[in-house]
Amino acid sequence: MALSYPRVASHLEQTDTDGYLIDADGDDSNQYYLSGYHAPDSFVTLYADGDVSLLVSNLEYTRATTDSDADVVRQLSEFGYWEKAAEMDPRNAGKLATADFLADTGIESVSVPHSFPTSTADVLREHGIDVVWDEEYVLTEVRAVKSEREIAHIRETQRANEAAMAVAEELLERATVDDGVLHLGNEVLTSETVRERIEITLLERECGMNDCIVAAGAAAARGHDSGSGPLEANAPIIIDIFPRHKRTRYFADMTRTFVKGDPSDRVKEWYELAHEAYEAALATLQAGVSGEAVDRAVCDVFEAEGYPTLRTDGSTEDGFTSSTGHGVGLDVHEAPHLAQQGEKLEAGHVVTVEPGLYEQGTGGVRIEDLLVVTDDGYENLTEYPRDLRVV
Amino acid sequence: MALSYPRVASHLEQTDTDGYLIDADGDDSNQYYLSGYHAPDSFVTLYADGDVSLLVSNLEYTRATTDSDADVVRQLSEFGYWEKAAEMDPRNAGKLATADFLADTGIESVSVPHSFPTSTADVLREHGIDVVWDEEYVLTEVRAVKSEREIAHIRETQRANEAAMAVAEELLERATVDDGVLHLGNEVLTSETVRERIEITLLERECGMNDCIVAAGAAAARGHDSGSGPLEANAPIIIDIFPRHKRTRYFADMTRTFVKGDPSDRVKEWYELAHEAYEAALATLQAGVSGEAVDRAVCDVFEAEGYPTLRTDGSTEDGFTSSTGHGVGLDVHEAPHLAQQGEKLEAGHVVTVEPGLYEQGTGGVRIEDLLVVTDDGYENLTEYPRDLRVV
Repeated sequence: MALSYPRVASHLEQTDTDGYLIDADGDDSNQYYLSGYHAPDSFVTLYADGDVSLLVSNLEYTRATTDSDADVVRQLSEFGYWEKAAEMDPRNAGKLATADFLADTGIESVSVPHSFPTSTADVLREHGIDVVWDEEYVLTEVRAVKSEREIAHIRETQRANEAAMAVAEELLERATVDDGVLHLGNEVLTSETVRERIEITLLERECGMNDCIVAAGAAAARGHDSGSGPLEANAPIIIDIFPRHKRTRYFADMTRTFVKGDPSDRVKEWYELAHEAYEAALATLQAGVSGEAVDRAVCDVFEAEGYPTLRTDGSTEDGFTSSTGHGVGLDVHEAPHLAQQGEKLEAGHVVTVEPGLYEQGTGGVRIEDLLVVTDDGYENLTEYPRDLRVV
Repeated sequence: MALSYPRVASHLEQTDTDGYLIDADGDDSNQYYLSGYHAPDSFVTLYADGDVSLLVSNLEYTRATTDSDADVVRQLSEFGYWEKAAEMDPRNAGKLATADFLADTGIESVSVPHSFPTSTADVLREHGIDVVWDEEYVLTEVRAVKSEREIAHIRETQRANEAAMAVAEELLERATVDDGVLHLGNEVLTSETVRERIEITLLERECGMNDCIVAAGAAAARGHDSGSGPLEANAPIIIDIFPRHKRTRYFADMTRTFVKGDPSDRVKEWYELAHEAYEAALATLQAGVSGEAVDRAVCDVFEAEGYPTLRTDGSTEDGFTSSTGHGVGLDVHEAPHLAQQGEKLEAGHVVTVEPGLYEQGTGGVRIEDLLVVTDDGYENLTEYPRDLRVV
């Protein structure tokens, strides 16, 4: 039995479309959220008249009838898929079968998410179906507000994340320094080694990761550089872990900055300022405030000390070079945005707050926690010391 | 320095478009292949006049200039991104900046992959750019033909896969049977336990997996059911592992069927027939033959013994309920297709051959190897015994 989605229903009314249509595999979070179904290949989900219908291949049919949240499951073969596939590229036959499925369901117009494939949109349009992309990102908006159950899932992932961070910290603590480079026993300690230990720790807690950042020195200042090679003493090491739970599919996210040995006065100053910015963000965070207001509070702190931000220079690579935070859920980056133009926050939004300072060629520092927005502030889902971790 | 893509160039000529355009994150294999760049958020890649150009956010700029295969890297901020983002939803500002980037580059028409976002296509069209989706799937075709280097990457992933399969087999071998259920020591042996050991083994070899199938009993007959709970004796257990190498991003794929205890005569018959079908596929496989011909050879074997196939009944859930195989590369399912309407095979295609027999409510058997198509046959990338593994 599918859930009901009043925001989507009202979006359909406002845009005067008959249904909301998704054509994607289960890795697409809108697809997984609406269908409750995960499949490696693309399938179609329609939300119309309060019902969720799935259109799947025969290979998926049996499992979809029991494992999905759909009210109705239909098969491609009901809509002439095999006859069509005998006459054309089978990849296109599915799009034509989708047009027939919509006609059969009495759907003449659909609203689709921004990522909806142009190929399917164009085939549907050729068959008289009006396809309008959803400029409101309504499903993303719906997904951004988490239920108690979703928050519990995210918290569970963050617990695994903290365990992994503790294992990483312990490795850095146990390391010795030889010629400025970290060693474990006779081996040089590298980003890769720390990353592997983080991943195994996550795995033991039913979580996976595609990647995580263990970046030392200059790499720490390069956006989305995961880091590689030997770790150095007396310089900041940024560890940013964003695991996903394998069963629930919900992400978590956290960053801490470590120094093995002695941080320079400059790095200590950076960190203090990042921490001040973090406190400013938390003091601002609550339902009804905009994501932009939280970002402004953080930029104010950095700019007051003369550091550039994206607000003062949209292409800066030094200073505070990111926005303050982002939503986390079935995607690791999702709505809402704690950034310029960031939308109004609602109770149940789960967001990161991640101020940092960076300098190309040198490195950087970052603090990142994960929080639930509440009516009078926030609940912090992160339980890990948030000082500069000098080990 | 980007590679050149003569097939894409000739596609552009034939479709009379100025460039091939991708708007996706680095998890999209067309994007990663053409740009040589992996980023967690969407960015734009253009192939035109033999050059690859990237359009990225300021956060990605520094890394993109050094880590991508692009000839040219541009920033969104060069095309008024921040000014636009101040006036509209920033997610839409990037699409407008893309339109300006194309205008600046003298591009008036683009061919796009089938998955190209409808939102970006419609915004570009509103700005006078002709957007045509690529019905030839040309980049998919280009990706299907692997270089020696790519084949070496896939082989490396398959070696890790074999190590993981051996660890799974050893677990089943060591298990004892109590009341028809497998145990390790005092613990019931479950699909989940085997899956975790497989994943840790992969990880130690720099490979990851999103999922893998360890399906016993009825679950083995349900398409893409990963399996869960206690493993039973005397019934087939299908183990299907499709890992991805973390560094190269290339997948591999293999399936074996195990029985702890005594397989029934029926299961032995199924397996012998699946093995006969496997041999028939390999006898057919070579460059110049169509993927459909290989699939026909397999269906012939099953149909001769009275089992339904997708050729006799497109919606069958019993018998041979899948097609014979698929390409493997940066995607675990990609071109070419060993299936009805399957395209002509070329030397350098890397494909699975995976015949099996299934019965809803009972279970199934499957053999799956990974092979490179060559001019006079194939090279098998899989080194693992392919009999029914009775342990």
